[in-house]
Formats: sequence, C-alpha cells, structure tokens
Amino acid sequence: MNKTRITDRGIKVGTLPAGPLDKISDVPGVTVGHSTVRDEYHKTGVTVIIPAPDNLFFNKLTAAVHVINGFGKTEGTVQIEELGSIETPIALTGTLNTGKVADALVRYAIEQNAAEGKGCRSVNPVVGETNDGTLSRGADRPVGYEQLTEAIAAASADFDEGDVGAGTGTVCFGLKGGIGSASRQLVIDGETYTVGALLQTNFGSLDDLTVAGIPAGRRIREIIDSELPPKGYEDKGSCMIIIATDIPLSELQLKRVLKRAVIGLSRAGSFLTNGSGDVVIGFTTANRQPVPGPSVREMRCISNDKISAVFTAAAEAVEESVYNSLSCADPVTANNGSKTVRMRALCEFPDALK
Amino acid sequence: MNKTRITDRGIKVGTLPAGPLDKISDVPGVTVGHSTVRDEYHKTGVTVIIPAPDNLFFNKLTAAVHVINGFGKTEGTVQIEELGSIETPIALTGTLNTGKVADALVRYAIEQNAAEGKGCRSVNPVVGETNDGTLSRGADRPVGYEQLTEAIAAASADFDEGDVGAGTGTVCFGLKGGIGSASRQLVIDGETYTVGALLQTNFGSLDDLTVAGIPAGRRIREIIDSELPPKGYEDKGSCMIIIATDIPLSELQLKRVLKRAVIGLSRAGSFLTNGSGDVVIGFTTANRQPVPGPSVREMRCISNDKISAVFTAAAEAVEESVYNSLSCADPVTANNGSKTVRMRALCEFPDALK
Amino acid sequence: MNKTRITDRGIKVGTLPAGPLDKISDVPGVTVGHSTVRDEYHKTGVTVIIPAPDNLFFNKLTAAVHVINGFGKTEGTVQIEELGSIETPIALTGTLNTGKVADALVRYAIEQNAAEGKGCRSVNPVVGETNDGTLSRGADRPVGYEQLTEAIAAASADFDEGDVGAGTGTVCFGLKGGIGSASRQLVIDGETYTVGALLQTNFGSLDDLTVAGIPAGRRIREIIDSELPPKGYEDKGSCMIIIATDIPLSELQLKRVLKRAVIGLSRAGSFLTNGSGDVVIGFTTANRQPVPGPSVREMRCISNDKISAVFTAAAEAVEESVYNSLSCADPVTANNGSKTVRMRALCEFPDALK
Amino acid sequence: MNKTRITDRGIKVGTLPAGPLDKISDVPGVTVGHSTVRDEYHKTGVTVIIPAPDNLFFNKLTAAVHVINGFGKTEGTVQIEELGSIETPIALTGTLNTGKVADALVRYAIEQNAAEGKGCRSVNPVVGETNDGTLSRGADRPVGYEQLTEAIAAASADFDEGDVGAGTGTVCFGLKGGIGSASRQLVIDGETYTVGALLQTNFGSLDDLTVAGIPAGRRIREIIDSELPPKGYEDKGSCMIIIATDIPLSELQLKRVLKRAVIGLSRAGSFLTNGSGDVVIGFTTANRQPVPGPSVREMRCISNDKISAVFTAAAEAVEESVYNSLSCADPVTANNGSKTVRMRALCEFPDALK
Repeated sequence: MNKTRITDRGIKVGTLPAGPLDKISDVPGVTVGHSTVRDEYHKTGVTVIIPAPDNLFFNKLTAAVHVINGFGKTEGTVQIEELGSIETPIALTGTLNTGKVADALVRYAIEQNAAEGKGCRSVNPVVGETNDGTLSRGADRPVGYEQLTEAIAAASADFDEGDVGAGTGTVCFGLKGGIGSASRQLVIDGETYTVGALLQTNFGSLDDLTVAGIPAGRRIREIIDSELPPKGYEDKGSCMIIIATDIPLSELQLKRVLKRAVIGLSRAGSFLTNGSGDVVIGFTTANRQPVPGPSVREMRCISNDKISAVFTAAAEAVEESVYNSLSCADPVTANNGSKTVRMRALCEFPDALK
Repeated sequence: MNKTRITDRGIKVGTLPAGPLDKISDVPGVTVGHSTVRDEYHKTGVTVIIPAPDNLFFNKLTAAVHVINGFGKTEGTVQIEELGSIETPIALTGTLNTGKVADALVRYAIEQNAAEGKGCRSVNPVVGETNDGTLSRGADRPVGYEQLTEAIAAASADFDEGDVGAGTGTVCFGLKGGIGSASRQLVIDGETYTVGALLQTNFGSLDDLTVAGIPAGRRIREIIDSELPPKGYEDKGSCMIIIATDIPLSELQLKRVLKRAVIGLSRAGSFLTNGSGDVVIGFTTANRQPVPGPSVREMRCISNDKISAVFTAAAEAVEESVYNSLSCADPVTANNGSKTVRMRALCEFPDALK
Repeated sequence: MNKTRITDRGIKVGTLPAGPLDKISDVPGVTVGHSTVRDEYHKTGVTVIIPAPDNLFFNKLTAAVHVINGFGKTEGTVQIEELGSIETPIALTGTLNTGKVADALVRYAIEQNAAEGKGCRSVNPVVGETNDGTLSRGADRPVGYEQLTEAIAAASADFDEGDVGAGTGTVCFGLKGGIGSASRQLVIDGETYTVGALLQTNFGSLDDLTVAGIPAGRRIREIIDSELPPKGYEDKGSCMIIIATDIPLSELQLKRVLKRAVIGLSRAGSFLTNGSGDVVIGFTTANRQPVPGPSVREMRCISNDKISAVFTAAAEAVEESVYNSLSCADPVTANNGSKTVRMRALCEFPDALK
Repeated sequence: MNKTRITDRGIKVGTLPAGPLDKISDVPGVTVGHSTVRDEYHKTGVTVIIPAPDNLFFNKLTAAVHVINGFGKTEGTVQIEELGSIETPIALTGTLNTGKVADALVRYAIEQNAAEGKGCRSVNPVVGETNDGTLSRGADRPVGYEQLTEAIAAASADFDEGDVGAGTGTVCFGLKGGIGSASRQLVIDGETYTVGALLQTNFGSLDDLTVAGIPAGRRIREIIDSELPPKGYEDKGSCMIIIATDIPLSELQLKRVLKRAVIGLSRAGSFLTNGSGDVVIGFTTANRQPVPGPSVREMRCISNDKISAVFTAAAEAVEESVYNSLSCADPVTANNGSKTVRMRALCEFPDALK
C-alpha cells in the first residue's frame, strides 16, 4: 500500500506547523479506524473517527456542523445543531450504506452502555457519506454492524490514508481519492493546541485540481491523454470533512471554525458543484459534558481576537488533507456490477507536482 | 378501536373549514399507511406519508424542513434543505428504529426503480421519529423493511389515527398520544386549496394541555388523582409534524408555512422543552420536478399577499391534529421490558372537554 | 396615564413567579428609557433597553437573535449572530426612523468612547422597529439623535408601559398597543435567576385576541360593534421582542431560549402573518466579555437538563408582556397626515376579561 | 485615474467567457454609480448598484443573502432572507456611515414614490459596508443623502473601479483596494445568460495574495521591503460582494449561487478572518414581482442539473473582481485624523504578476 504523503512529495501547504503525525489524531485522544470491503463488485467500507477513548454518551463533546452544500445524506446533524454536542463516534461510509451504519452505531451504543450496566433509550448516531457507486455496487449495501465494530476495534492514532475504509471506492478530481488527514498547531498564551482534519474525498474535476498552487490536473492531462475522465464532465461528487481540536471553543465559535473548511476545498480546485454533499462536522475535546453533570458548568472559550489563527489552521489542514487522500491512494480497476472502471492515481504522475 | 375525533367531541379549532376527511389526505394524491408492532414488550410501529402515487424519485416534489427544537434524529433533512425537494415517502417511527427504517426506505427505492428497469445510485430517505421508550423496549429495534413495506402497501386516504403505526407507543400530555391529522381549505382566485397536517405526538405535560382554549389537563387532574403523571415532571417528548398542501409555493414560501406549525403546538400547551425533537417536514404537490426535466421550468407561487391565510390553515390543522391524536387513542397498559406502565387516554375523560 | 397592568385586572399568566417589578428590569442592571413624540401628525418615539450600566463596547454581553418572521428592518442582527455578543443599547422605534436611530446609536457610542478618551472605529448599532404608520406620519422620520439620547438619559428600572416611547403609535389586536414587559424567576441550585421580556406590540387581529385563555377579542366585539377594525382584515403588524436574563448561558443556549418567545405570541392570538416582522433579540448579563480580555475566558452555562424551566419563563414573560402592552395603553385619536384614526384600548372593556 | 484591469495585465481567471464589459452591468438593466468623498481627513464614499431602471418598490426582484462571516453591519438582510426579494438599490459605504445611508435610501424611496403619486409606509433599505477607517476619519460619517443621490444620478453600465465611491478608502491584501467587478456568460438551451459580481474589497494579508495562482503578495515583498504592512499582522478587513444575474432562479437556488462567492475569495488568498464582514447579496432580474401582482405567478427556475455552471460563473466573477479592485486602484497617502498612512497599489508592481 502506497503510504507516500503529500509532504513526502515535497509539497508544503500554508505556513503553520503540523503536529507530530500531521493527522487528525494529533489532537490528543482522537483515533481513527477503518474497515475495508474490497471484493468482486465492491470497493467500499467504513471509517470511524473516535473523538475520545471513554464512553461518549456519558461524557459528550462540544460539537458543531456546517453544511457547505447539502446534496447528501449525513445523519445526526439536527441534534448536533440544537445541542452543540456529540455522543457517538463519527462514521463515514458509502451513500447507500448510511441507514445500516446508523443502525449499527445505535446497536454499538446500546451494547456499550449495557456493558456498563446502563440503559440507552436514545442516542444520536452521526454518519457521513459520499457516493462510491462509480467503483462499487452500492445497492448491495455491504457495510453494517460487523464492519463498524471492526473499524472501531482497529482505531488508532497512526491510521492509514488513501483507498481504505470509507475511501476505498471514492474518486477525487478524476483520480483515485480516499481518506486524507492533516493537522496544524498553534500557540495561545504559551500553550500548544492542535487542529486536525480528516476528509473522505469524492469530488472535483481533473482539470481543476490545484496542489498548493500547482495546476496538477492540467499537467496530468498533458502527460497522458487516455484513461482519464473526459474534459468538461460534470463533477457530481462529495466531500465529508471532520475537524477536531483541543482548543477551548464555544459551540458558536466551533461552528465558525468549521466554516473555514471551504477555503481548503476551494484552493484544491473544488467548485462545490450541485451534486456535491460537502458537510463539515467538528468537535473540540476541550469542553466535555459529563452526564449527569453539574447544574452550571464552566465552558472555556478563546477570545475571538485569537480565533483567526484557528481559522487558518483549519483551512490549511483541510487543504492538505485533500492532497493526502490523493497522494496515498493507489490506482484501481473496479467493476461496479454494470461496468469496469479504471481509475488512475496521483502517485502515477510524480511530474505533475513539479 | 376508538375512532372518535375531536370534532365528534364538539370541539372546533379555528375559523377555516376542514376538507372532506379533515385529514392530510384531503390534499389530492396524499395517502397514509401504518404498520403496528404490538406484542409483550413492544408498542411501536411505522407510519408512512406518501405524497403522490407515482415514483417520487423520478418526479420529485417541492419540499422544506423547519426544525423547531432539534433534540431528535430525523434523517434526510440536509438534502431537503439544500435542494428543496423530496424523493421518497416520509416514514415516522420510534427513535431507535430510525437507521433500520432509513435503510428500508433505501431498499424500497432500489426495488421500485429496478421494477421500472432503472438503477438507483443515490436516494435520500426521510425518516422522522419520537421516542416511544416509555411503552416499548426500544433497544430491540423491531421495525424495519417488513414493517415499512407493509405500511406502504396499506396506505390509503382514509387512514386510522391514535395508537396505530408510529403512534402506537407515544405519550402526549401525560395521556396516550399517537397519530393525529386534520386539514383546512381556503380559496384563492376562485380555486379551492387544501393544507393538511399529520402529527406523531409524544410531548407535553398533562397540566399544560389546553384543548381549543379549555384547560383540559387541569380538569383531568381534578377528575382523578391517581394513575396520572406526577405534577411538575419534565416533559422530554417530541413531536413530528408533516404538512402537505397543493398550494403553489416556492421552497422559501413553503418553509415559511412550516414555521407556523409551532402556533398549533403552543396553543395545545407545548413549551417546546429541551428534550423535544420538534421537526416539521412539508411538501407541496403543486410544483413537481420530473427527472429528467426541462432546463428551465415554471414554478407557480402564490403572492405573499395571499400567504397569511395559508399560515392560518397550517396553524389550525396542526392544532387540531394534536387533539385528534389524543381523541382517537385508547388507554394502554404496556411493559417496556423493565416496568409496566398504565397510560390513560383522553377518551376516558369526556367531562374534561366541557 | 393608565398604569393598570394585566395582573391588576386579575389575570395571571402561567405558573412561574414574577420578579419584584414584573418587568425586564428585574434582571439586575437592566434599565429602560423612553422618548415620546406626540404632536399633530406624529405618535411615535424611541425606547431603549440598556443591558448594563457600564460602557458596553468595552464590556460586551453574550447575545443572540431569533427571527420568527423577517418582514422587518431590524439592524445589527448579522454581527450578533456571528459573534454572539452585543455592544450597544437596543433601540426600538417606528419603521422609517430606523436608519436615523442607528446613526444616532453610532454617534452616541463615538461620544461615549471619546468621553473615556477612547476611539471608536466600528460599532454595531442594534435597532428594532414596528410600523406605526397607521397613527403617525412615518415619512417625516421624526426620531433621531435628540430622542435617542433623551431616552437613554431617562432610563430606569421602573419605566412606563403602554403608549409611550416606541409604543406611542403601535396597534395590537386592533386596539392600542405599545410597550409591555414582564418577568419570571426560577431557582437553580439554590440561586434565584430572572428572565425578563419587553415587547413593542403592533400585531394581531382583534378576533384572535386571547388573554390567558379568555377570548377577549371576540367578547369586545360583542360589547360594541363600531369603532373597531372590520372582521377579517389582514393583520400586517409586527412585534419586537427583547429578552434579558442573568442566567449563565452560552450563545447557542440563549438562542434556544429566544425561540420560545413564539409560544407567548401564539397563545395571545398571533398567527405570525406575512407582514409581521417578529424578531427576538436577547442577552444574558452572566457572561460579560471585557475588551481587551484574556486569551481564554470561562463562560458559565447551565446544563441543558435545567433549561426547560428557562424556556417556560421566557414563554410566560412574553405572553404577559403582550397583555401589559394592551392593558397599560390608553385609547387615542390620531391623524397620520392623510386620515384621522380612532383606536380603542383594552382598558375601555373591563368586562372582556371576565 | 488608473483604469488598467487585470485582464489588461495578462491575467485570465477561470474558463468561462466574460461579458462585453466584463462587469456586473453586463447583466441587462444593471447600472452602478459612485460618489467619492476625498478631502483632508476623508477617503470614503458610496457606491450604488441599481438592479433595474424602474421603481423597484413596485417591481421587486428575487433576491438572497449569504453571510460568509458576519462581523459587519450590513442592513436589510432580515427582510431579504424572509421574502426573497429586494425593493431598493444596494448601497455600499464605510462602516460608520451605514445608518445615514440607510436613512438616505429610505428618503430616496419616499421621494421616488411621491413623484409617482404614491405613498411609502415601509421600505427595506439595503446597505453594505466595510471599514475604511485606516485611510479615513470614520467618526465624521461624511456620507449621507447628498452623496447617495449623486451616486444614483451618476449610475451607468460603464462605471469606474478601484479607489472610487465606497472603495475610496479600502485596503485589500495590504495594498490599495476598492471596487472591482467582472462577469461571466454561459449558454443554457441556446440562450446566453450572464452572472456579474461587484466587490468592495477591504480584506486580506499581503503575504496571502494569490492572483490566478501567482503568489503575487510574496513577490511584492521580495521586490520592496519597506512601505508595506508588517508580516503576520492580523487582517481585520471585510468584503462586500454583490452578485447579479439574469438566469431564472428561485430564491433557494439564488442563495446556493451566492454561497460560491467564497471560492473566489479563498483563491485570491482570503482566510475569512474574525474581523471580516464578508456578506454576499444577490438578485436575479429574471423573476420580477410587480406590486400589486397576480395571486399566483410563474417563477422560472433552471434545473438543478444545470446549476453547477452558474456556480462556476459566480466563483470566477468574484475572483476576478478582487483582482480588478486591486488592479484599478492607485496608491494613496491619507491622513485619517490621527496619523498619515501611505498605501501602495498593485499597479506599482507589474513584475509581481509575472
């Protein structure tokens, strides 16, 4: 498996320093796990982002959602918007698996609570998706409880990127996309904080791909003229964006941070097309909400005078995550049940980044 | 089964006339079906609202969503908000069934399209829920594809209300709630139009119940002093509200109409408590969107100068729907797996409405 | 001047206790001032709500906005929504005065800051309005800097209600409306907190007026059959709603509280008609934001488990405020420049409340 | 006055063709006028965008608003959001002038209606602003009715860009900014349509400026090392964005188009900082709403299947407008009352674009 990240290819995004792993898991406590389904007709899977190691239902995190373009089926947003909190891991998968994965998250929460001797009358599963139907026969909906729990069990800080988990079947800028991640660090009052991003990339037209200012998409077309998507085809893809941080933020402030994800997508070449479900879900680990908790709690918030650096961190982490999803993916030939598709990968075109 | 509606009990809500059935199905083409699960530990089910008799995926309807209070798990709202259209029936169920019912709607759409020789790469299932865990063991999630398709097959204009389908296990103002519906008609430029509502009622404290201005809740407490919820308990319930109309409206206008549902809830006695997932989903049958369709289509819209009457119609239909959900429900004794609960019904207290 | 409040007429709204004054100024630090313009062709004015006695620009308050129906010209909402804070008093006036009053608030902030030896490059004036054009010649825009500063200078905790200040020319349910206020108190963890409301009422059709469940509007029509608005006329009025509290709330929580104002309007008889600009602006005095301030501050927030009582307090305070605006208003005969209008007042119909 | 546009400097943005003027006024009927205040302590003014030549109050246009970042004082957004229509020209000015210009727009509407023998009880003035306080003494608020009517009288299709009107005192990427405009055309069903943008640019840090992929900001710093803003200073600026089109769109669709403006800002180098009031206001001339009008009207809407090209057009027009605002501005030395500031301009650094 190709594990060459975009920085390994000599590309630097922005000005802020990355964390040690340059992944969302640089935010302390955050882990990510994949389960990949790769067989004759399927290239799909599930990726889980686990915000903290404890039972989230009894120790919720401050969370927010921002919908860039809502042609998508993301579940769980209504409650996050109302309460500003999240109480399950976030699962990403292929579009038509969404209901099954939501039910699997519910079952997982019921079982996790039961194991602690507690009931579970209500839980808000959070599931994002993009459509991997070009490479996978979506109608079979091959991702459910088994895959979800496998992904949760596999979660770690040093997870894979590219064509794994929920990125197994996605296509980004006409190349093989997948899962990409990155992080940025900043210092506030002498303390170092992290903003991390993880993307499931399934959007963009080849000719629009720009890697840190380099018109990589147009260069790839100059390199070869076959086995690429035709010019001018309409991108109907989507991008799920998860942002994690340990910076003290209120719900409103966190939402403001999520709104900067679009900067990263725009710079990579997205035009946020009609068919794109571009949804940002984010959380901070800084203001946990124990259940039951005190009647009045202290929520720590940075001053808005300091928040612009957080915006920059989010924008840069998202932009680099797009590139890592491309950089770590291998080319694939897949049969989605009705036709065979060959999808090239960025790693095949090293000259495109020069 | 008790089929005594609130008008049969001598209560009139508002000033506008009802349609022939005084149900959401007075909107031409709209039908409703139930599947009820009622066994030792379960009082739950599913109710489907079918906006039109044809394949909705290839002939979408203009739709909108309004979240009054978002402590809920409604699925499908992101895409409705973005595109202003709906492409599946709307299913209502108990909270923890939501993922399974969403997957069932997806499977139903795949099969319906396949029967027409068409594929289905993407579909946006719309599922609303309230929590029937007081009367039913939710963790078993006993509602799925079988129940959904049964409900769809059973759909008709003259459907039952009260403790059926998604209303089998709900509790409203400390009494047995359920499904309630109503309609209002109005004339614009000589043409008669209809606004219909259907509610899954699972909210409210007994002492707040007001039926068309009558403090029915306080009167019930005067009539008996046992077998009722204690005074001052916190309502944690929810209310799903579906609004249908055949009035020509743009997406924005439809959303404005949905925002008036809260008038009906408020007058019935709701305080929109923290735990209440109060979500309004609505559609108009007036501006269908065929797929594929013309590059430029005509959307018919009433003048905003005429829209206040539509607001009144929606508010009155919602208010009466609350009362019908109560009026048509029978009392029940249920075991939710951990305790047995006796739930009284409005039909037992005829004097409370005098 | 009539100072008979609705409680003096024997009407009790809801179940929570009022504060000592039963006005928004029961929230410690909040004061209200009026300047009234009442001459041959004008019945208008300005009312200011001052959230705290110090310079708000350098000690902002957590604030939120909720638009119930946006047919209105309220200024300052964009920044409140983004930053969750307010930095000037809130001024209410007649529609066409809005620009002049906004400029007056800017000038006031510049002068206030200059008096402290500080500059003022930017300030976000908050101005709400309803249309008093039925009783006043709006096109003259007779309210500006002189009236604003007079109102600020006059601000006190024990302010007048009814036809004063911004309520001088408003019409509510076909009767003379105006300024109304009320408060509710609740205890959290042994500490007493207050929620206060102040309304500028200019909405509603007479036949819909319901006072704490009493169909007062219909009764008034039974009492007299002339000098009242015709049945079935369309209400085009508006209602500005200010909510203050000292409860510790985040921006998101405060917004949730504001969303309950509609309960009070609905119960009084509003149908939120097309032409109604119904806008809620609220603040809490609990989480001040000093400028300059620390990089990380503590924001105190109550648990969402405790917030339902706050919702009830807001709903009750708003409902009673509507009645106080009517109860304290005197009848008036006014010439708006094109015709003379006689407007009756609730105080003329004591039997309507029995 | 420098009238060299960015295309004259050899820069091409995107792939779609521009209209004949490459300005917002390529949308038929749209004109733009400026009034400039340039004296010892002031570099400010007002720019008006007039959507159509007739009285807009009696022939409203479909309109929408999208707030990218709301640290701003834009007026008129509440009603546009609710009704989806606009009824006055749009005026842009310096922050502290906003109230005066809003009042001037009201007076203008009153007088315009009176000239037609009609009254004006209510009108929703739309005023956007950015803060020109670096170059101008804002507290004097030197822009009002006289300047507004001068700008309206001067309106034409072939208007100036750069440091004129509302752009006289703005600063963009550490250089002299101002007014910039551009247009894009596309063909739907054989008919040619136009999307135009006009920006008041007052945002960005020099080092982030990227012109069509060229890191122009960093190059400028290489060219000279004095008379430029220090590295790492925090951008507190804003950007007002006006988008016009003649494409048939519903209110919801138009709002979707406005959401793509952020792509253009992002590519030019914006990080949407905390202090930036980035607000998009847009209208289409395709669906006029006569007052009084029919009870039911036809609104023409393109298919969402065709809307991605409109998104691209909006993104490209906004991006090029940023560059035109810079390209057409001259350097300035200004005294804002407390200090003298020298502001360089892009036209001084032709090598930065190579």
